[in-house]
Amino acid sequence: MSDAMVEMTMDKGLDNTIIGESTKSFIDGQKGILEYVGIDIDALARLSTFEETCFLLWYDRLPTTSELQAFTARIRDCYDLSESMWEALSRIPLNASPMHMLQTMVSMLALEDPECDVQLREAEEAKAIRILAATPAIIANFDRLRRGQEFVRPCADDSMATSFLRMLNGQAPGEASARALDVCLILHADHGINASTFATMVVLGTESDMYSAVTAAIGTLRGPLHGGANERVMRMLQEIGSIDATEHFLRDRLARKEKIPGFGHRVYKAIDPRATHLKTFAESIAEETGNTELFEMSRAIEELMREEVGSRGIHPNVDFYSASTYYSLGLEIDLFTPIFAMSRISGWAAHALERHADNRLIRPRCQYTGPHGASYVPLESRG
Amino acid sequence: MSDAMVEMTMDKGLDNTIIGESTKSFIDGQKGILEYVGIDIDALARLSTFEETCFLLWYDRLPTTSELQAFTARIRDCYDLSESMWEALSRIPLNASPMHMLQTMVSMLALEDPECDVQLREAEEAKAIRILAATPAIIANFDRLRRGQEFVRPCADDSMATSFLRMLNGQAPGEASARALDVCLILHADHGINASTFATMVVLGTESDMYSAVTAAIGTLRGPLHGGANERVMRMLQEIGSIDATEHFLRDRLARKEKIPGFGHRVYKAIDPRATHLKTFAESIAEETGNTELFEMSRAIEELMREEVGSRGIHPNVDFYSASTYYSLGLEIDLFTPIFAMSRISGWAAHALERHADNRLIRPRCQYTGPHGASYVPLESRG
Repeated sequence: MSDAMVEMTMDKGLDNTIIGESTKSFIDGQKGILEYVGIDIDALARLSTFEETCFLLWYDRLPTTSELQAFTARIRDCYDLSESMWEALSRIPLNASPMHMLQTMVSMLALEDPECDVQLREAEEAKAIRILAATPAIIANFDRLRRGQEFVRPCADDSMATSFLRMLNGQAPGEASARALDVCLILHADHGINASTFATMVVLGTESDMYSAVTAAIGTLRGPLHGGANERVMRMLQEIGSIDATEHFLRDRLARKEKIPGFGHRVYKAIDPRATHLKTFAESIAEETGNTELFEMSRAIEELMREEVGSRGIHPNVDFYSASTYYSLGLEIDLFTPIFAMSRISGWAAHALERHADNRLIRPRCQYTGPHGASYVPLESRG
Repeated sequence: MSDAMVEMTMDKGLDNTIIGESTKSFIDGQKGILEYVGIDIDALARLSTFEETCFLLWYDRLPTTSELQAFTARIRDCYDLSESMWEALSRIPLNASPMHMLQTMVSMLALEDPECDVQLREAEEAKAIRILAATPAIIANFDRLRRGQEFVRPCADDSMATSFLRMLNGQAPGEASARALDVCLILHADHGINASTFATMVVLGTESDMYSAVTAAIGTLRGPLHGGANERVMRMLQEIGSIDATEHFLRDRLARKEKIPGFGHRVYKAIDPRATHLKTFAESIAEETGNTELFEMSRAIEELMREEVGSRGIHPNVDFYSASTYYSLGLEIDLFTPIFAMSRISGWAAHALERHADNRLIRPRCQYTGPHGASYVPLESRG
């Protein structure tokens, strides 16, 4: 059978293509269900931690007490950056986009890893841990840098969420704040083969390395069609400005048939199961940090949207309440997507490690629609 | 029709999936034909330059004299690095892999570009030119750095090939050397939707930016299943060591049914049309630089392979003669793949600009094979 006999299918967005099997996350958009390795996101948000969720995603089961201790210790051992990484961070232009900054710093981590090209599963895992663990120090301290503040080094006793907030704000976070960020990290950890997760598969398909894969995923996530929706939610909240202006703003936008960021989801036709938890945490953080008006505005928008379009299945998604949560935690708006990355690294690595055992070169075809047999006209004859 | 009614196809490597239309390169593997926008690679290798070929790939036609001058001037204006880029380059660990170094530096270019997030075609083109133009200075000077030599800045009157060689070796290259590298850049510029080109499409599918896309492509190219074959050819030539040892080495390898790097191609069943030119240039450079034994060894291997396996359609591919060519030009073996990247940036950008007009989010599905409804067992009950 010649090549030409194989049936080829055109699928520009790969919407109808299954790229492989996975045991990581299960999504039922009709019923509003999200499970990681079979466990409902609801239980994980209430009872688990980000570190434990990461173990679950990488090893397909919950850890024992000693396993969790060992896994957490491995992450904490890699919290701090090398002197040359701190030096490089201090030289990043202050007006750089934080996602490009993060992409650059992750790429740079590879330069220092003598095991970078070792392709055993254990080596790939070690690289993933290094990247995951270094991210809080990178993001928090870049923000300190551009605020003109001294770097704060990570504290090896902290969880990732606490460590990040302590570095960002220069003081220990309140209990509700630390737990809220931890839950945000759990909720964003994985979501099937999204574009950034797929990017890691394309990179690793050539037997490249985890640093290159995560670098590519960060570059993919930064596109407005993927990350960034909660940034748009927050900018809307800032534009509205007060609880009194909320109803008028929203009805006006809807009358002009404009989209409201943070509502509706390509997959979830019912409520986005992640939004429920975020709402609870948004409220507790609003109280702890005193940002109650932002939360009240968000709740008012949700109620107005329920009246107006709730019957059409348009509900708040994961981005809607994460906006006011992150803002209340003291995060600049352009750090929302880097925080998404900090969480999703766990999912990117989970899929990369899963594919490691059955890796494939990913190389689609294109349909050539250009000319044939054109001649090379000499330059002097072209005018 | 519900989502479940859409027919989904499993295609783990996307071998049977067409990702879109393209007018860039046409490959007929049976006949051994490669065309860029309809013009045979043979004519381009004989008559064109890398800069002109890049124009052809980006604009789908050959330039007029004034267009070529303007395009070349735009590239040359971007040859030099900013002071902070030179500074960053000077701090790269000397034992870093050059591909990770290049990936990091390209990612860093984004940090300085205030138009990074502008998504107009003109802005994307300007980014591609910045990346393309900066690459020779980055690769050549990283090599100088690790040899303990001072940086050499690019000369704005040079072609990209000449500029690279002048910086690398600290002196103007001979005519045959400059032309040989120029032809190598032409021959590697594009080759359909290979894995690295596809990576740029995945990244840009989310409306991310050209820097992120090329960063991802470099990370993809560095995998041994994509770039790196000519590095393996060169290591084999070094292992053989002399013309006298060649026949014994080769027959021994073949008797053990081991693969010979640089022979055979997934697509080309006839002769790889790029190999023919490389052979000619390898010979002229061998003479100019005095590396005649390497060329004689390569030719001996080709003849032995023709006797042994030529009847099975196994012919030298693009990597076979590029190995001795690059080596004779003074390139360290681990710079072969970075040079491939320097050329292929033109093709990556060509496909990215082509897709810009009809961009799609690329998001395949996976088939979930894990458990459902698993319960969250509390930590203390897990042992």
